[in-house]
Amino acid sequence: MSSSSSDTLTVPAPADWHVHLRQGEMSALTAPHVRQGGAALAYVMPNLAPPLTRADAAAKYIQGLQELAPETRFLGTLYLSPELTPDEVHRAAAAGIRGVKSYPRGVTTNSDGGIENYEVYYPVFEAMQAAGMVLNLHGEVPSDASQGVCVLNAEARFLGHLEKIHARFPRLRIVLEHATTRAAVECVRRLGDTVGCTITPHHLALIVDDWAGRPVNFCKPVAKTPDDRAALQEVVREGHPRFFLGSDSAPHPLAAKYPSPAAAGSTADFVASCGCAAGIYTSAILLPLCATILESFGALDKLGAYASTNGRAFYGEPAPPGAHVVLRRAAATVPAAFVHPAHAHKDDADASKLQVVPFWAGRTLAWELV
Amino acid sequence: MSSSSSDTLTVPAPADWHVHLRQGEMSALTAPHVRQGGAALAYVMPNLAPPLTRADAAAKYIQGLQELAPETRFLGTLYLSPELTPDEVHRAAAAGIRGVKSYPRGVTTNSDGGIENYEVYYPVFEAMQAAGMVLNLHGEVPSDASQGVCVLNAEARFLGHLEKIHARFPRLRIVLEHATTRAAVECVRRLGDTVGCTITPHHLALIVDDWAGRPVNFCKPVAKTPDDRAALQEVVREGHPRFFLGSDSAPHPLAAKYPSPAAAGSTADFVASCGCAAGIYTSAILLPLCATILESFGALDKLGAYASTNGRAFYGEPAPPGAHVVLRRAAATVPAAFVHPAHAHKDDADASKLQVVPFWAGRTLAWELV
Repeated sequence: MSSSSSDTLTVPAPADWHVHLRQGEMSALTAPHVRQGGAALAYVMPNLAPPLTRADAAAKYIQGLQELAPETRFLGTLYLSPELTPDEVHRAAAAGIRGVKSYPRGVTTNSDGGIENYEVYYPVFEAMQAAGMVLNLHGEVPSDASQGVCVLNAEARFLGHLEKIHARFPRLRIVLEHATTRAAVECVRRLGDTVGCTITPHHLALIVDDWAGRPVNFCKPVAKTPDDRAALQEVVREGHPRFFLGSDSAPHPLAAKYPSPAAAGSTADFVASCGCAAGIYTSAILLPLCATILESFGALDKLGAYASTNGRAFYGEPAPPGAHVVLRRAAATVPAAFVHPAHAHKDDADASKLQVVPFWAGRTLAWELV
Repeated sequence: MSSSSSDTLTVPAPADWHVHLRQGEMSALTAPHVRQGGAALAYVMPNLAPPLTRADAAAKYIQGLQELAPETRFLGTLYLSPELTPDEVHRAAAAGIRGVKSYPRGVTTNSDGGIENYEVYYPVFEAMQAAGMVLNLHGEVPSDASQGVCVLNAEARFLGHLEKIHARFPRLRIVLEHATTRAAVECVRRLGDTVGCTITPHHLALIVDDWAGRPVNFCKPVAKTPDDRAALQEVVREGHPRFFLGSDSAPHPLAAKYPSPAAAGSTADFVASCGCAAGIYTSAILLPLCATILESFGALDKLGAYASTNGRAFYGEPAPPGAHVVLRRAAATVPAAFVHPAHAHKDDADASKLQVVPFWAGRTLAWELV
């Protein structure tokens, strides 16, 4: 669905079906980046602090984003938790909230309130199916060494939950988010038309070696093996209609991605919490990045399907007539960091400086937005 | 071979059969740590800059360590490279060098000159077998996504090389270093008595989740799955005589483990090289750490076999009569960092401060050296 000559590409109103924009200063920095990266629509995750568990809170959050970036269309989600009732689902649907996101407990940012068992949510899923809301699944079970579960097999072991929910609610639209494995791709392929799957651009590019010792490339779910990456690339190259762009773009301050004694105050405080935040930031460079990566594995002709039409068809959000972005072939360097204007005067070494290092920082993209 | 009551342990002259002590200020810091951690003997790796490819250089390096820590016995190794000749092997053996270390190209610190094909080294292996020298194998093939190789399967894919060399040189003593997988344990088990295997304490404790986003736990080979860890624990708990301690303790300055704009000078310089050094430092806490970890999986009665007698028997280096260390049960906190005395005055946030964060920094060990 994208048209292209050798050096321009036209994509109808790209849509990012999985994005984190955070709160406060961070969302002031990131909300305008959605459009800057070429997306006309952003489906925004609810894992704030506290999580968005109520319709009114979610609607208010989306309204705030809309004010920060009026030309972008933001769609909101609720955080699945025991607080969520069928009544609240209907209130959310009436307020324009489009989906409910499920996080297994503890697997990613602000997911300590995540789920452990889906059956208790069947009344909620029933209401969602009736209201036409989408269930967005973070598809990993929590790591548990005593059961042999670690970040490498957490996604494969989740797939039984997806199959079970789909079998019980065949009309409920479900999206398996940010798939990273061949097992997940094959599972979604064999399920019905109500099951979709987002694939991030970074998982089309990375394998485990790329995040081993490189926190800038560390995210959850972690990038897996070359064979897993090949499966993601194959299904995108095929243009399979139920696989589409959800960037999982997640901004973290550089000081949280790369902790240091400077940020912690002392080495003793540093070692008490020397973990690097999981998340890769792509919003501000999204379409040029997608074009560059898809071209690298021979799928440039599927850019429109991946970044626009497939996801829009699944969600029932066709591109507005005439709306499109144009990319041209041009070498462009990804900035080292995106900096909140109020922090621009600070020295780079100041750990309090709000700067977000994007994916591929300092590297060259082959395409840029016109 | 260790004797123990409920709250003391006696281990005959512990030996660490795989340790990195580096050069310059770093070796001045680390060489005395071998004894501080309880080991009487250290078998020292040759991956310096430049690597130790000649007998005279290796002997001089060992002499320098010996001067830094006169009470510790240091044994030296050569770095396998095309420069190494059978004549040089015999010169090295005459100079007291005990082994030759093979690094696949590019897989760890200072391994850019590593090997790609073993057959060209058969004349060297012949000379080593004749001279009684040990071949120490870093058992990973280089990652190559086009062949499906990544850090997760690099060790399993190496094992064919080990089997082939052993079949061709059955009298050559070979050590598969720092095994991390069930496949490696099973391979070494089924080979002959001339094939040994080192296991690090950190690989007895870590899985992939522990280094995902935690550079302090990042090393090569990377820690793998719960099942792989279980295989390492099982063979140590069994007291199998050909499996023994090689710590692979590897000191890196904190600023190299956790790079930052402060260390790089600017965010732009930081993103150009934001990788975290691979290596875990355990020398200074080695025996208390081993005791604590072995106890955690029910193998405390095998501490003497693991940390002393098995490796000493394999290398033909029995413990000197009467030499032993005693540990007592006592909670001791691992320091946040070991600091070179000449840097002690610097602020912790100063990226030029030579400080090494050890494994389990800030955590509690259950045993301490008397």
